[in-house]
Amino acid sequence: MSVIEVGDNRYGKEAIRLVRLIRGAERHAVRDLTVSIALEGDFDASYADGDNALVIATDTMKNTVYAFAADGLDGRDGVDGSIEAFGRRLAEHFASFGQVDRATVRLREHRWAPIETGPGPATDAFARDGSWTRIATVSAGGDSAGGGSAGGGSVGSIAIEAGIEDLSVMKTAKSSFAGFPRDEYTTLAEAADRIMATQVSARWRYAIPDIDHDALFEAVRRTFLEVFAEHDSPSVQASIWIVGRAILERHPELAEITLTMPNLHHWAVDLRPFGLDNRGEVFVPTREPYGLIEATVRRV
Amino acid sequence: MSVIEVGDNRYGKEAIRLVRLIRGAERHAVRDLTVSIALEGDFDASYADGDNALVIATDTMKNTVYAFAADGLDGRDGVDGSIEAFGRRLAEHFASFGQVDRATVRLREHRWAPIETGPGPATDAFARDGSWTRIATVSAGGDSAGGGSAGGGSVGSIAIEAGIEDLSVMKTAKSSFAGFPRDEYTTLAEAADRIMATQVSARWRYAIPDIDHDALFEAVRRTFLEVFAEHDSPSVQASIWIVGRAILERHPELAEITLTMPNLHHWAVDLRPFGLDNRGEVFVPTREPYGLIEATVRRV
Amino acid sequence: MSVIEVGDNRYGKEAIRLVRLIRGAERHAVRDLTVSIALEGDFDASYADGDNALVIATDTMKNTVYAFAADGLDGRDGVDGSIEAFGRRLAEHFASFGQVDRATVRLREHRWAPIETGPGPATDAFARDGSWTRIATVSAGGDSAGGGSAGGGSVGSIAIEAGIEDLSVMKTAKSSFAGFPRDEYTTLAEAADRIMATQVSARWRYAIPDIDHDALFEAVRRTFLEVFAEHDSPSVQASIWIVGRAILERHPELAEITLTMPNLHHWAVDLRPFGLDNRGEVFVPTREPYGLIEATVRRV
Amino acid sequence: MSVIEVGDNRYGKEAIRLVRLIRGAERHAVRDLTVSIALEGDFDASYADGDNALVIATDTMKNTVYAFAADGLDGRDGVDGSIEAFGRRLAEHFASFGQVDRATVRLREHRWAPIETGPGPATDAFARDGSWTRIATVSAGGDSAGGGSAGGGSVGSIAIEAGIEDLSVMKTAKSSFAGFPRDEYTTLAEAADRIMATQVSARWRYAIPDIDHDALFEAVRRTFLEVFAEHDSPSVQASIWIVGRAILERHPELAEITLTMPNLHHWAVDLRPFGLDNRGEVFVPTREPYGLIEATVRRV
Repeated sequence: MSVIEVGDNRYGKEAIRLVRLIRGAERHAVRDLTVSIALEGDFDASYADGDNALVIATDTMKNTVYAFAADGLDGRDGVDGSIEAFGRRLAEHFASFGQVDRATVRLREHRWAPIETGPGPATDAFARDGSWTRIATVSAGGDSAGGGSAGGGSVGSIAIEAGIEDLSVMKTAKSSFAGFPRDEYTTLAEAADRIMATQVSARWRYAIPDIDHDALFEAVRRTFLEVFAEHDSPSVQASIWIVGRAILERHPELAEITLTMPNLHHWAVDLRPFGLDNRGEVFVPTREPYGLIEATVRRV
Repeated sequence: MSVIEVGDNRYGKEAIRLVRLIRGAERHAVRDLTVSIALEGDFDASYADGDNALVIATDTMKNTVYAFAADGLDGRDGVDGSIEAFGRRLAEHFASFGQVDRATVRLREHRWAPIETGPGPATDAFARDGSWTRIATVSAGGDSAGGGSAGGGSVGSIAIEAGIEDLSVMKTAKSSFAGFPRDEYTTLAEAADRIMATQVSARWRYAIPDIDHDALFEAVRRTFLEVFAEHDSPSVQASIWIVGRAILERHPELAEITLTMPNLHHWAVDLRPFGLDNRGEVFVPTREPYGLIEATVRRV
Repeated sequence: MSVIEVGDNRYGKEAIRLVRLIRGAERHAVRDLTVSIALEGDFDASYADGDNALVIATDTMKNTVYAFAADGLDGRDGVDGSIEAFGRRLAEHFASFGQVDRATVRLREHRWAPIETGPGPATDAFARDGSWTRIATVSAGGDSAGGGSAGGGSVGSIAIEAGIEDLSVMKTAKSSFAGFPRDEYTTLAEAADRIMATQVSARWRYAIPDIDHDALFEAVRRTFLEVFAEHDSPSVQASIWIVGRAILERHPELAEITLTMPNLHHWAVDLRPFGLDNRGEVFVPTREPYGLIEATVRRV
Repeated sequence: MSVIEVGDNRYGKEAIRLVRLIRGAERHAVRDLTVSIALEGDFDASYADGDNALVIATDTMKNTVYAFAADGLDGRDGVDGSIEAFGRRLAEHFASFGQVDRATVRLREHRWAPIETGPGPATDAFARDGSWTRIATVSAGGDSAGGGSAGGGSVGSIAIEAGIEDLSVMKTAKSSFAGFPRDEYTTLAEAADRIMATQVSARWRYAIPDIDHDALFEAVRRTFLEVFAEHDSPSVQASIWIVGRAILERHPELAEITLTMPNLHHWAVDLRPFGLDNRGEVFVPTREPYGLIEATVRRV
């Protein structure tokens, strides 16, 4: 007779929505975050025995995020206001519970920019810029020797991942796809000149601990865009390599980067039935199916 | 015994996706549209008799959009490249069929901006700007005396509506809500200082026929943002009036504007259980339920 | 100099989510609704003067829905538990405010069915049935002679619309599309046998005031499905007519029905490049573009 | 100077939509699938050298799915018509390419049921049943010694995972949450009787290779529902354990099951301001934030 047991498990709170308004002397600033918390650790009794004595309520996690936001995220007194720093503080808090082996905090920042008015940027009115989303994941290792309250255990290793999502880009030249093998199911024509469109998701790890997260995020984003715009692409795979390698070369702080690039196909419309030529000008952009290419580029 | 008949009816093609690449001598430009077509007219036989003799296939509508895109939307030779002009050409085409009483074309333009690189804006690489969407609706009246082919009938009145959607804005000061009546179901506290956040949808009609659609759209958008940022708001209703009136005052070309503003509530978090004060700094942004305020402001 | 004024306007609360648990002696029942409220009336001062004295707060609307749910929706004591009856009670409440000319309540009911277990249906556990959504819209006319409190005005005409949404159906035989006109932009082949798939939205009005809403809804839904399954369809238009007419014929309580049917195209895949025949067996279902056909069938 | 290289990578085609119509002698049947393919293997040259010689085009993957659907999925001649069997055939095909180390096929089946009519179930008309989605993931190991064409390599290990998604269930009794630790950020009250609502995602592996996939899927689904309905739940964690263990106990074919259960909170509305008691009858169902609990229950 086999024995049945609890295996890998985690729990937490997802989709905690938070707007932190920073009331500066001269102007307001808005931080708009979605935060998720997940814990792993000594929680088997909550499964197998229905014993909640060590189960930090997910409602408490939510409260903690709001409480920490009260004196965080404002960058005052030279304190790091990045989502990475906020996530680290939360991860370390939850990892300090004795029953927690690992606390993982995922953050997404939705961007608001001051509205441009005649006299300059508004001090207290903002427009949402939906062009991309900055993300971060921070996890802190705990020490499960301790008891059931914060501070009962010590906090161990910290892992920080930064990234960007929801960034849609398109190349209308310098993109081809040819030389691929042809089998009995292959009908795709070779393309010397095609549109390449993608909605990028990038995540990277830093090789060194103490960095300026805001500055590096912005630098990596710019490098991505610049190299994406300038390079010649023989495939999405090659684009990932060219862009990823350039990012690692220009930013020695990064240890590795993982790029996920859906290939959002743009099919040229056949206009010949209407007596027209399509000289690479009229396309149907499609959502499904799509290619999906994902790779890590790393420093050895 | 009652008689049963077909009443109001319309049909057409929705969600025609189109990317038009304009291959300029020095740089490319991208037009990314979603187009919908709807026809009203002499279609009773298709319902009551199953007779398709006058039913322009919706697949044909789609083909027509792509064919017209081949020599449209590029603004070449001083031709109007606006979505309003493209929509008008399509609406007049379909209205010219004898069996069509009214052809309505709705258009949404998704924005792509050249990627900024060191040497300047890229000539053939673009990033999606999801901050707002320009929309237009063009309808053309037909003359149902004619037969079943394009050109068989004449085209009558044209109605053009322009607009913007997906524009999220927020005021973090100069917004209040007080003085409302209290009944047995009222628990909302009066707010002298609240966050007002909304995702605006605006649609307007022009009073005069021949205008520069691109320039006016941009001017109206700027006025909206500027007045939204600067005004004092005692309610979303009053904001619609103040912003709408300012737009009509500054842009005499407009006959009326309809503004739809969901009130996306931001609730201040009660931090007192955690021994903290919330001085208007920590909020939960919410998606549901939401207020919805819609009004037309018009010139008499 | 032109005068600028407020034109048509309305405001209210959208997306009020409500679960009403009915704790019966032997078994529970779950009502899961999304409710929206919209008011029209004497609200010009809230726009033009920023005067909220007559503005019933949308937060109060939400509270009212929850308060009314406490002793409604349970069908106890022979009281009508339908969404139509609940909507009517809410509409009449808001229409009784003196400043309200018309109160409109829209309701959607999300379905939960008892889980089947060995001993029979569970008494207190439910599974969501996402196959369709029942909807209703109830509006009550007010009498704007009165003052600013509930009961201050009298309630006038009531209009009730019932309906169904999110119902996806497909015919794999007895569907064709032929005999349509061909112009220079027509490439669609005539189809003697095609898949017709649609996601129906239907809304109907009753000719008589006092009916059993639950029973009639169910009867209309069954007629729709039965006639949809059995009829021969030469077009989506004809299907709307055949189904709509049958519903009016079989259910004399209905005055008219409006059917909206997107045509969700299923394209047969060309398998000849792979040495295979496609005998109407392998299709690509598509989401965009899609045909959209909408018509009212009514009793004269 | 550090060296930069390609690390983990995979590519493929996502969201291949397929409807397979089975034209039986007496009645039709509809299979509606979304299929995704992902390959890992000897693809470094496509990244680092822009060499596509070994890159099976994702368009070819799509074609292969449609071609294989022509003589699959119909269950004719006693052949297994399950998505697991279809996925396996596809995975083995792609794994047989010499450059492929692992081919992974993910499948989702969208359900259509014959419409009930007076004379019985329709033979050629169907309604979508959106109550849950069956899923499967099949991966096949390849042997990268071979060349660049199908059949050039041999196929190795097969891993099959079955599962269910989009299944929303709710318990209105026998659910509590108490005994959890309280810290300075805890405000949640203990609940002896609460609504527990979740949208389950379950994935399981079989311990033995040759099974009746359709029968076992249905048996596991029924056990899930039955135990979910009947058990007493002191927490979502305990529910996962109780349900997961029961599934493993009753179905010895399963080696392990992973259950993901968001806790979709239903908050009791405070009706006291309106002079009403809420005796566990009026709730606000919420979408965000939500708890998320995930665990594997396995046989040792």
